[in-house]
Amino acid sequence: MAKKIELLGSTGSIGTQTLEIVRMHQERFEVSVLAAGENVGLLEKQINEFKPKIAIIGSKEDCDRLKANITTSTRILYGFEGIKEAIYDGEADLVINALVGSRGLGPTCQAIEAGKNIALANKESLVSGGQLVMSLADKHNVTIIPVDSEHSAIFQCLQGEKSLALKKIILTASGGPFRKMTKSQIEEMGVKEALKHPNWSMGSKITIDSATMMNKGLEIIEAVWLFNIALENIEVVVHPQSIIHSMVEFHDTSVIAQLGLPDMKVPIQFALSYPNRLPNNLASLSLTDICTLTFEKTDEDRFPCLRLAKEAQKIGKTMPCVLTKANDMLVEAFLNEKIGFYGLSDSIERLMHKHNPCEYHSLDDLLEVEAWVESTLCF
Amino acid sequence: MAKKIELLGSTGSIGTQTLEIVRMHQERFEVSVLAAGENVGLLEKQINEFKPKIAIIGSKEDCDRLKANITTSTRILYGFEGIKEAIYDGEADLVINALVGSRGLGPTCQAIEAGKNIALANKESLVSGGQLVMSLADKHNVTIIPVDSEHSAIFQCLQGEKSLALKKIILTASGGPFRKMTKSQIEEMGVKEALKHPNWSMGSKITIDSATMMNKGLEIIEAVWLFNIALENIEVVVHPQSIIHSMVEFHDTSVIAQLGLPDMKVPIQFALSYPNRLPNNLASLSLTDICTLTFEKTDEDRFPCLRLAKEAQKIGKTMPCVLTKANDMLVEAFLNEKIGFYGLSDSIERLMHKHNPCEYHSLDDLLEVEAWVESTLCF
Repeated sequence: MAKKIELLGSTGSIGTQTLEIVRMHQERFEVSVLAAGENVGLLEKQINEFKPKIAIIGSKEDCDRLKANITTSTRILYGFEGIKEAIYDGEADLVINALVGSRGLGPTCQAIEAGKNIALANKESLVSGGQLVMSLADKHNVTIIPVDSEHSAIFQCLQGEKSLALKKIILTASGGPFRKMTKSQIEEMGVKEALKHPNWSMGSKITIDSATMMNKGLEIIEAVWLFNIALENIEVVVHPQSIIHSMVEFHDTSVIAQLGLPDMKVPIQFALSYPNRLPNNLASLSLTDICTLTFEKTDEDRFPCLRLAKEAQKIGKTMPCVLTKANDMLVEAFLNEKIGFYGLSDSIERLMHKHNPCEYHSLDDLLEVEAWVESTLCF
Repeated sequence: MAKKIELLGSTGSIGTQTLEIVRMHQERFEVSVLAAGENVGLLEKQINEFKPKIAIIGSKEDCDRLKANITTSTRILYGFEGIKEAIYDGEADLVINALVGSRGLGPTCQAIEAGKNIALANKESLVSGGQLVMSLADKHNVTIIPVDSEHSAIFQCLQGEKSLALKKIILTASGGPFRKMTKSQIEEMGVKEALKHPNWSMGSKITIDSATMMNKGLEIIEAVWLFNIALENIEVVVHPQSIIHSMVEFHDTSVIAQLGLPDMKVPIQFALSYPNRLPNNLASLSLTDICTLTFEKTDEDRFPCLRLAKEAQKIGKTMPCVLTKANDMLVEAFLNEKIGFYGLSDSIERLMHKHNPCEYHSLDDLLEVEAWVESTLCF
């Protein structure tokens, strides 16, 4: 029987690639829910092709437009209330959360509370609310399958292994487009340069996060929660070729790594097919074609976001939520050319100093913290 | 309760490193049998330290000498009959077969028939008699855990994975000491040069096999049997740093690799502790210290043993047994400076042309083939 999937963020980079995987394996996957934000044209095409039971678009206006246009029997809803309704009403076996930024947190919590396994591409859910998300997942016996290439790599490396034997996680980082530049050169870099990722084709938010290396900082925090490992046992290694997607070291010193060409369709497919693997027609890795893999240390002076993320997680409580929300807003400001490259990390650092971290117990607690960030952040 | 081990080849490179592991984890492992060939002095020390129930030395003469010297209650036997008796009488949970060359085949078969799991460092057992060994293992429900670093790597990569998903095995090879030389340069190389392995500290037989790359040829055949994979789905990649010990590719294009510093104690310990991993104080890999990993294609013109091994396995039947036994004898001839580097592969090729391969059904069938090699091989 086909696995029913609910795809949140269907018109983004992960969303469209997820649908490519579904196209490759039509007998195995059935799309029951599609949710998008603003790209109503693409969502309409997707509805016509995949004929989901429910589709959600960001605004009421677009919802009315869609209703008028589509010919399928799909129910059309809108906004986060629509996503919530679809999650609780839907019959999905797997929710793929490919929403961008901190807005992914609510749907992650809702999907878990609805008892649905999650393929999680939205790392911000775990960074902001890791403690809440993991305790909910535990309570509702839900499996969180990472979609991020690094965390998918680690998840794959840990298959068949005992978690007690895990000593260290080695996250690889491409280093982004500014890897070889000095601090003063980086300072001059704008949106155009930051959007040129050397290896991965991704959405603009994560591409900017890669340039600042905040992405790797968020991934460290994500790994802490997903793999129940201490922050100090996670190492980041710069690996410009993006062939080794991450590694784990066991307490016998044996290291297991997952490798492949940089193609998000591999971790997406693994998350969809887990616990199985499915054959596909994607290109295979040939190490004799690539010839050389290199490794460098990270530099937190040139890439302060990496340091800020670690500091936020060390402080814990609501601090990672502040980091995530502030970063979301500042990436947008950078994309709109309102701030420069280091303006982003400077603003986050100032805001972290202002914030008084406290324990949180619910999604509402975190939404309150996000509201504080919105009202306080200045740049 | 401690795992009782029976160590065949206790005074060799793998044997002494196995005992180092036992020393590190004295509460977990108990040595019940030690077997050695000629190094009676070292065996005596090992008997005094590990107090096995049974010890075996090669000759009756050395056996008498040992009996006179030791103060423990260890029973002293000799020769292959002694090993056989110890295997059938002993109470071991695991037999570690670290014998050198084709002489390992008999004890491998006997251990399986006695229903004992095997940690197999003697690849020649599988190369010569893979079909027999694997069908016996199946019949007696015995697990064969590879000790070879490459096969241990593959075995580790396959943990928790479904064998149906396996598409390809990528065996890494250091390339040996003559990797960068031309054919005419290699032709001039003698024993001294061939014994200088760039990365691994090993016994002389396997070090010469690494220089000729016959070792990699034998490993291809070993992998065919251990992992039930077609010859054409095994690729050899030259990786001079010996950090990635081997890899598997699954049918979703995901590649899993095992990495570490080149230290045989890691795969030895894994074979001993399997299905668990044990902490140890061995040095950890640091990729930022190593900086660069490189990969090259193999060259069967300069290293014809690689081609001969594949041809022998393609022909199948008794041909790989001929290859193994001839190689054993010719490595000894090379070590004794009776033949040159390419004399070894030339002799094997001539012998393979002379041999009329036939089906085999028992250890005796294979011993007969080995006797034919002994009487026919000329160099």
